[in-house]
Amino acid sequence: MLTREGCLARRQRLWERVPESTEWVLVADPRHVQYLANCWVQPLSFSGGERCWLLLERGGRATIMGDNFALRSAVHEPVADREIVEPWYDHKHSVINRDHALLNALRKVAPELAGRPGLIEAEWLPVAAADILPLEGEAWSLDSGDHAGQNGSGALDLGTILRSLRRQKEQDELDLLRTCMRAGDAGQLRLREVLAAGLSEFDIYLEIQKAAVAAAGRPALVYGDFRASTPEQPKAGGLPTNYELKTGDLFVLDYSVLLDGYRSDFTNTLCIGAPTDEQQMLFDLCEAAMRAGEETLKAGTAARDVHAAVAAPFRDAGYGDAFPHHAGHGIGLAHPEPPILVPDSRDVLLAGDVVTLEPGAYVQGIGGMRIEHNYLITDSGYERLSNHVISLT
Amino acid sequence: MLTREGCLARRQRLWERVPESTEWVLVADPRHVQYLANCWVQPLSFSGGERCWLLLERGGRATIMGDNFALRSAVHEPVADREIVEPWYDHKHSVINRDHALLNALRKVAPELAGRPGLIEAEWLPVAAADILPLEGEAWSLDSGDHAGQNGSGALDLGTILRSLRRQKEQDELDLLRTCMRAGDAGQLRLREVLAAGLSEFDIYLEIQKAAVAAAGRPALVYGDFRASTPEQPKAGGLPTNYELKTGDLFVLDYSVLLDGYRSDFTNTLCIGAPTDEQQMLFDLCEAAMRAGEETLKAGTAARDVHAAVAAPFRDAGYGDAFPHHAGHGIGLAHPEPPILVPDSRDVLLAGDVVTLEPGAYVQGIGGMRIEHNYLITDSGYERLSNHVISLT
Repeated sequence: MLTREGCLARRQRLWERVPESTEWVLVADPRHVQYLANCWVQPLSFSGGERCWLLLERGGRATIMGDNFALRSAVHEPVADREIVEPWYDHKHSVINRDHALLNALRKVAPELAGRPGLIEAEWLPVAAADILPLEGEAWSLDSGDHAGQNGSGALDLGTILRSLRRQKEQDELDLLRTCMRAGDAGQLRLREVLAAGLSEFDIYLEIQKAAVAAAGRPALVYGDFRASTPEQPKAGGLPTNYELKTGDLFVLDYSVLLDGYRSDFTNTLCIGAPTDEQQMLFDLCEAAMRAGEETLKAGTAARDVHAAVAAPFRDAGYGDAFPHHAGHGIGLAHPEPPILVPDSRDVLLAGDVVTLEPGAYVQGIGGMRIEHNYLITDSGYERLSNHVISLT
Repeated sequence: MLTREGCLARRQRLWERVPESTEWVLVADPRHVQYLANCWVQPLSFSGGERCWLLLERGGRATIMGDNFALRSAVHEPVADREIVEPWYDHKHSVINRDHALLNALRKVAPELAGRPGLIEAEWLPVAAADILPLEGEAWSLDSGDHAGQNGSGALDLGTILRSLRRQKEQDELDLLRTCMRAGDAGQLRLREVLAAGLSEFDIYLEIQKAAVAAAGRPALVYGDFRASTPEQPKAGGLPTNYELKTGDLFVLDYSVLLDGYRSDFTNTLCIGAPTDEQQMLFDLCEAAMRAGEETLKAGTAARDVHAAVAAPFRDAGYGDAFPHHAGHGIGLAHPEPPILVPDSRDVLLAGDVVTLEPGAYVQGIGGMRIEHNYLITDSGYERLSNHVISLT
């Protein structure tokens, strides 16, 4: 889980990025309520999809707002100085519209904000909430550029500022990501144990999900690509189907384990039966591409240069068209998120970025495959966070 | 999945509830985008937590808006006449703030709304979106009463109107709920197969999740209470812990399987080892309470009368205090939702309601237990939707 120390550090970085005149910020994107207050409404609960909001005041006070069950459904104890818990349901009376309980919580704090300039997260805070607030002057504006992972344009755009801050992970975020990684490793291992012709993609998914959640040690969301690639249909992605694996197919396991909003994201491809020489040749190219990418991973590297390094082995072997997608991307509270490792990226690697490298090759008549690791970027290079075995057999 | 026929029927009912002058409605709650357009962003995808919005125009046209990956991550093909798909990520360039792609989609349709009175879902539509719209006159107001499950107050409150409409399920919703029920049944059966002293709650959860998802036939969310009740701590709820079961404990499995936003929700309690006479006596009271509740289930019954019927056997046996919670509630796109079967409920059962009955008893020194079925309310009575075995051993 996220810690008080981590939440306070992230808030401090936020205060350094908003105008000095800003006295309060109201955070409404569920990811950002988690990021700044360790308050993640458990998606595996009857409150899944419900929201809490977070009011931060310059000088330190943090107030979390929610209905009486949404706050109780938070995965951990929120890091907040005050909780405004509004009644929605009491086991005695008919319920009110649950969203209105949340609005009622905001009504409790709104008078405190009168006459004080503040910022709201306008991409998430609903109209009915803004209507309650005594907003003074400009309370938001949108960053119109592709600054999601850059330094921003000076717009009063909390969501974009927070996306930028999110790149540089604090220690508590890394600890959480490492737990996701260990769970991801366990699912990759399980694939090796069970993969066999005759099983369906869905059969295999059930095994991987169970192994990954067991390794996570608590309920987690498991998502990604659980798909067979065949020589006839080399590129397939998404959740499993009932397709039954046959000898000569490749199984691409590119999946994520999500805890408290944070996720791992890594891949291996296994062959059902012995790979053909061509399949092994493509796989060797993927491994060479990953090594080439790893050599560039370091704070200060342009994201496009990482992509170029990963693409080179494919191009040099005459298989440039076989690698059509990104070389990798940032992960954390979203996926993909900056930095994006693509040919025309404007991103530059920062210490604290957590990124993937995921070279893949898809050739009609041979098949499709992808491999992927996750890395923490440092000033001197990287630390690899995923520890699954990458091999075709 | 929801069908075109079902979506059109629900939209028709919505148009009958908004003012005649309303020419369009903009729906923003993800549950309601699903309800009206079969568009549910897969929570088990990298787009989990992202949003699509739905514009409905009187006369029939439905427009779904989203970024290029959120729409691709919808579980099924949306029921819409037009899709506005805005670029967010192209595997070539840095990403923009993903929320801004959604706002850009809205910018495409906003000019079409100029000069035409419409309604927005103000509890969910963010400030930055409303700012784009050429709103004419009053576009929303909040229903201030507890009308969530009633006929409403005349307020221009789309969210509350839709919650009211949601009570009466269409055929496609019932089909989806039946799939959730079959999956729920499978998990209850699995509990019987594996329950043993020495297993942890979490061990059991892993087995139930796998069995339920396997029976659903596709990835699903599984949540609820997976907890041991002991004579010392009779009342426990929520996701599993590492507590290891011992002989004499009761395992309360009160859980839901969620597909496309819809869910089952039913319970049984099993004893590890042979139950004591007192445990069996309490369980017999729960069964008597359920039968008494079932006898009242019929369109037109006051929800408080259902509660009274369920509570009576406990009270008559001198265990009135042992049953402290609701007798049941509606389920569908949320949980609990109206009608709420509680002592001071103002709700009245309607044909088309899907409800639970869940008598439970928690007595210090004996233990805690709960049983639950799900029912479709009809004009003449009910149809039971869940088919698990209810028994203590």
